[in-house]
Amino acid sequence: MTFVEACRAWKAVSGRLPIPISILLEGEEEPGGVHLPPFLRAHADELRADIGLICDTTMWDAATPAIQTMLRGLCSEEIVITAADRDLHSGFYGSAAANPNRILARILADLHDADGRVTIPGFYKGVPELPAALREQWDTLNFDAAAFLGAVGLSVPAGERGRTVLEMIWSRPTCEINGMGGGYQGEGFKTVIPSMASAKVSFRLVFDQDPHAIRAAFRDFVRACVPVDCKVEFIEYGSGSAIRFPIEAPAFGRTRDALTAEWGRAAVFVGGGGSIPVTHDLKNALGMDVVLAGFALDDDRIHSPNEKYELESFRRGVRSWARILDTLGS
Amino acid sequence: MTFVEACRAWKAVSGRLPIPISILLEGEEEPGGVHLPPFLRAHADELRADIGLICDTTMWDAATPAIQTMLRGLCSEEIVITAADRDLHSGFYGSAAANPNRILARILADLHDADGRVTIPGFYKGVPELPAALREQWDTLNFDAAAFLGAVGLSVPAGERGRTVLEMIWSRPTCEINGMGGGYQGEGFKTVIPSMASAKVSFRLVFDQDPHAIRAAFRDFVRACVPVDCKVEFIEYGSGSAIRFPIEAPAFGRTRDALTAEWGRAAVFVGGGGSIPVTHDLKNALGMDVVLAGFALDDDRIHSPNEKYELESFRRGVRSWARILDTLGS
Repeated sequence: MTFVEACRAWKAVSGRLPIPISILLEGEEEPGGVHLPPFLRAHADELRADIGLICDTTMWDAATPAIQTMLRGLCSEEIVITAADRDLHSGFYGSAAANPNRILARILADLHDADGRVTIPGFYKGVPELPAALREQWDTLNFDAAAFLGAVGLSVPAGERGRTVLEMIWSRPTCEINGMGGGYQGEGFKTVIPSMASAKVSFRLVFDQDPHAIRAAFRDFVRACVPVDCKVEFIEYGSGSAIRFPIEAPAFGRTRDALTAEWGRAAVFVGGGGSIPVTHDLKNALGMDVVLAGFALDDDRIHSPNEKYELESFRRGVRSWARILDTLGS
Repeated sequence: MTFVEACRAWKAVSGRLPIPISILLEGEEEPGGVHLPPFLRAHADELRADIGLICDTTMWDAATPAIQTMLRGLCSEEIVITAADRDLHSGFYGSAAANPNRILARILADLHDADGRVTIPGFYKGVPELPAALREQWDTLNFDAAAFLGAVGLSVPAGERGRTVLEMIWSRPTCEINGMGGGYQGEGFKTVIPSMASAKVSFRLVFDQDPHAIRAAFRDFVRACVPVDCKVEFIEYGSGSAIRFPIEAPAFGRTRDALTAEWGRAAVFVGGGGSIPVTHDLKNALGMDVVLAGFALDDDRIHSPNEKYELESFRRGVRSWARILDTLGS
């Protein structure tokens, strides 16, 4: 919206846009959209541009604009464990019959060791220690881990022992159980042994981790935990590698300068924990780097009830894009 | 129903019932009813009788009637784990923020060790080895474990290593995850870290296990697994001790004879895995033993979709009760 308004403003004032622009709208990202990549490949000649511009990111804080220079990759998968061919009464079958909830809980629990590391064999292949230059850059940001966790009611980092919170969310891979369920979850109690339980698990990937290798290793890991007379089914959801942008390229420096001019505060280059799969699609299908400059704030409750977007972010976001378009055209 | 029909038959033929009968109907058992015990205590003088008769059990097989002489106790509890004060985006918070699904999976997985034994401290207090007399009696039943599991699509007993399936379902305590859930369980995928996850866990108890002690030990076990900045809430559901009946008492022998006469096949005394909490309530509030004689079959899919009850069980069940009432009155 901020970008479209900036384009309208340019046309209203100058009668034209300062540079040729293709606007790409898609609504499938969150559930792991499958239609965009083939569309991009099919229209690659028409869509290819010098640089991509995406506004789906946050400011460093409410006063400091930021350009996100890396994104974690993603690999998401659902597993469905089936034991008996029907739900069973736990009085008649209790303990004798395999309980998919118990099998699933064991699998999910065993995905991490006591130090918070993911236990899937080969998971950390392609994950280097944080490069010194990046560590120095991030140190200047003075990230307040206690405030970050405290803002959502937490106080203890839950990730790998010995890592900073900024590492956990920007440069370390994760394994999260985004959903799990099996058996009776309604009001009251039913002493049932369900025939089925399932979980949605996703991995945020960094640096050179291969999402396909991770998916295969995860499936092997799960299969090894399922008793011989139970079944496991896998449902594949979206995946993409991690991505880092060449911040020494002119578009990144110019955007930073434009943001600095608009907000009156030096824009910063930051890492990022999210994935924004379309970024990867643009890189893969069109060979385009992407400038990620957004104006959301950490307290926007993104993906939660009562999500918001600040009017100030909207107004100055529009002005920021107007400036960025200007500088990219100059 | 079979019992009520038998009473109607007696009145239709003889104009009266052979013995005085109070019929008690309640509909709260499955979710752990709370209103019956105080009702029984309040009307104890009016309700007290020589013996209780309950028809909520199965035949040994389709040709062999059975009287169930022991019932497992029950202790059921729901746990709710809360971490952050809202759902979080796994890109922004992944691995840094505690994930209740992961905490819950670890708790649920750790309830059993690799040998299938429940790990809660003190859980096996009051659980003896199977008395020799009972083992001999059960040996005569020629229980077919492979057929029992095979009937529901399973082949490998999931209980304690080194125990027979009959022990697992009749004389050993259990811990079952009857329901668990947290995060996004709908169609597609959401990379959310939920703020909350919950599970319904129940224990089938045997011999002298104390349900109150088990509940307290379970809560301690769970609390010890919850990180300091997360919360756990417990919701108490029904509980009751295991129960064994004095099969040497006349009512048991007479009922066995009546069943044998009706079905033309020697009725057997069997153990049982279910709990039928009302049995315990009758014992506690009224001091009554209970004869459990029912006509359901193992393939009735009790508590499952497509539950059935055989017409033959209904017809001969009615006739069986008519005979039992006769013999108890003689």
